[in-house]
Amino acid sequence: MDRHLPPAGRWQLAMRAQRMKPSSLRELLKVAERPDIISFAGGLPSPYALPVERLRAAADDILRHDATGALQYGPSEGYTPLREAIAERLSTGGTRINASQILVTTGSQQALDLVARVLIDPGSRVLVETPTYLGAVQALAQYEPAFEEVPTDAAGLLPDRLSDASMRSARLLYTQPNFQNPTGRTLSLERRIALVARVHDTGLLLVEDDPYGELVYSGHTPPSLLSMAPESVVHLGSFSKVIAPGLRVGYLVAPEELMVKLLQAKQASDLHTTGLTQRLAHALLTDGDYDSHLTAIRLRYRAQCALMLKCLAQYMPDGVAWTRPAGGMFLWVTLPEQIDSSHLFEDALKLGVAFIPGASFHAISPQANTLRLTFATATPTEIETGIARLADAIKARLRETAVCVAVP
Amino acid sequence: MDRHLPPAGRWQLAMRAQRMKPSSLRELLKVAERPDIISFAGGLPSPYALPVERLRAAADDILRHDATGALQYGPSEGYTPLREAIAERLSTGGTRINASQILVTTGSQQALDLVARVLIDPGSRVLVETPTYLGAVQALAQYEPAFEEVPTDAAGLLPDRLSDASMRSARLLYTQPNFQNPTGRTLSLERRIALVARVHDTGLLLVEDDPYGELVYSGHTPPSLLSMAPESVVHLGSFSKVIAPGLRVGYLVAPEELMVKLLQAKQASDLHTTGLTQRLAHALLTDGDYDSHLTAIRLRYRAQCALMLKCLAQYMPDGVAWTRPAGGMFLWVTLPEQIDSSHLFEDALKLGVAFIPGASFHAISPQANTLRLTFATATPTEIETGIARLADAIKARLRETAVCVAVP
Repeated sequence: MDRHLPPAGRWQLAMRAQRMKPSSLRELLKVAERPDIISFAGGLPSPYALPVERLRAAADDILRHDATGALQYGPSEGYTPLREAIAERLSTGGTRINASQILVTTGSQQALDLVARVLIDPGSRVLVETPTYLGAVQALAQYEPAFEEVPTDAAGLLPDRLSDASMRSARLLYTQPNFQNPTGRTLSLERRIALVARVHDTGLLLVEDDPYGELVYSGHTPPSLLSMAPESVVHLGSFSKVIAPGLRVGYLVAPEELMVKLLQAKQASDLHTTGLTQRLAHALLTDGDYDSHLTAIRLRYRAQCALMLKCLAQYMPDGVAWTRPAGGMFLWVTLPEQIDSSHLFEDALKLGVAFIPGASFHAISPQANTLRLTFATATPTEIETGIARLADAIKARLRETAVCVAVP
Repeated sequence: MDRHLPPAGRWQLAMRAQRMKPSSLRELLKVAERPDIISFAGGLPSPYALPVERLRAAADDILRHDATGALQYGPSEGYTPLREAIAERLSTGGTRINASQILVTTGSQQALDLVARVLIDPGSRVLVETPTYLGAVQALAQYEPAFEEVPTDAAGLLPDRLSDASMRSARLLYTQPNFQNPTGRTLSLERRIALVARVHDTGLLLVEDDPYGELVYSGHTPPSLLSMAPESVVHLGSFSKVIAPGLRVGYLVAPEELMVKLLQAKQASDLHTTGLTQRLAHALLTDGDYDSHLTAIRLRYRAQCALMLKCLAQYMPDGVAWTRPAGGMFLWVTLPEQIDSSHLFEDALKLGVAFIPGASFHAISPQANTLRLTFATATPTEIETGIARLADAIKARLRETAVCVAVP
């Protein structure tokens, strides 16, 4: 019998997979990791902020005294003491969160995937801020929603730009209210109140993603949407920015009727999150030094943010604007309109500095003259050198476009 | 303004979530974990098989010498040395697997989820053995396929019971060829050859799930479907049964055209698998003692399996039959037709022993007079006591049904 080899490309993929596009950003981030490049691109915590010694001591302790717990199959909901510690930490002021409302996830990326899986059918309307977090768009897009962008300004998303019809028909609104990725902006208290009022009127579900809230530079963030409307919010949190991303431990808080479904989706996704890393997160969260650890990260990022802002003011030409974050890891630069930041990226790379072009952070309509910088990962010296290089690349582009414009 | 609280049950869920059913098995497994119960239910590795000391030493070493690697964000494909070590181990005889064909997943449960996500649209035909692995049905069912069951016998699935039409239209066939969960059966070499021949003719994609293949009691398993038809197979593997399930490290091997999509789905799911546990798996896999560690687990499970078979022969009444596995963790019991194993479960629990009713392991048509036992978790004493108790429960049921039948 003549057994022919099967031809390539012969499998019929799911519609959602046919629509998946190769991520140009992935390639771009790989380039940014070259050792000769100062990278303001990837949202990596500072390596100096990782509590290595304490994690090593905790791992040793866990594998001495709770090895079977850490290494055997565990409950899909997560490690109970960790869920209790998270609930305790989220219970502030008048808000009371119970451990039963917490589902531990494999990073908050998984929480986004689970929420999308449980709530989105092909064509479902989904509201997202613009610009918005790229990883959220990727997670949501897998379930083939119809995105609708919500405009933002310096005080975050604009609730009065949401139509009643959109709010009533959308499956969810995704927002990062604190030190948003990519802009570093914070949703103001007034806007939170206005948004929650409209949510109560329309029944919209809010997905509040808060990976950076603990990285506040001074004082407090405004109250969470969760605390303001617990019955209307799925709240996502993460230990990636405050302990270590490689642990892949995040969580979600959800109303009970959604939790039932989210838990089933979690179980089908990966049974449960790694027992060892859940216990590591729990050990650090409860060892009494957690708040001083957080303070050290906040001071580091505040200083690095202040330095980057100073350098931007010092080196950038006229016509370049940027945000002034009150916390988090990112700031957002708006260039003169004639500069496309994806072209600027190539120039900047030649000068040895990398960022992420702003077009990546939009579900529908990219804004080409924007870019995201992180000040968390680089050292102070690298920040100074890198911003000077970036300014040079922008100035060169401006000269070039000026020449082009001048030619009749 | 009168602000009414939102009513319960107001969110429109995705169709797939509306179809998710609460798992009765979850509740059942919780009961089985009571300390007064001898459990043959959950598929948990023996706690004595966990390489705790070696994992502790490896964790200490990793957090001393590669802490940033373990704790920072990592590549979605997985930790390169681990992918290389897996590829090396899968390359036997004439089969050559490259690291680029390996995607590390958060347990092989996630591999099932990713494969299903990339390949299944609502209504897509999906072929599964019957009985089959419950976790696979859960993962696949999320994407709303039309299941079609493939009959099996003592030598595994029956390729000549597959119609050409089914094989040409189905998105995939899911099978566990080695020491299948739940039956403990192995797909014979003859059947593998027949299946692969038909796959070459019809272009069907095989999903070969092999979490137990390393747990062979003596000699070797037949060649993998991957080695026989690398262009037509997605192969899933796991470290849950040979190192520790709590690490949540598994992998898949896929043809390049599928890998591109699986990688995008992986990235959207959880960015990457935990860096620390990937390094722990790599350390154990490559430290030179791995094969002797495997031998120790095989000997343990072989002895426990032999003991359970001996006890079954000693205690079970006539009319009860069971499989004789050549590896793995499970065996499959067929009861007299009048006994429904879900009712027997209640009786057995009162006598202090638990199993999983066989109905859980079918995508469509449950077979009520079957049950799954694992001999991996319990101690030898527990195996002896537990099987005697189970036999008592079965005998009592038989007496009861005999009486019922006798009444006119």
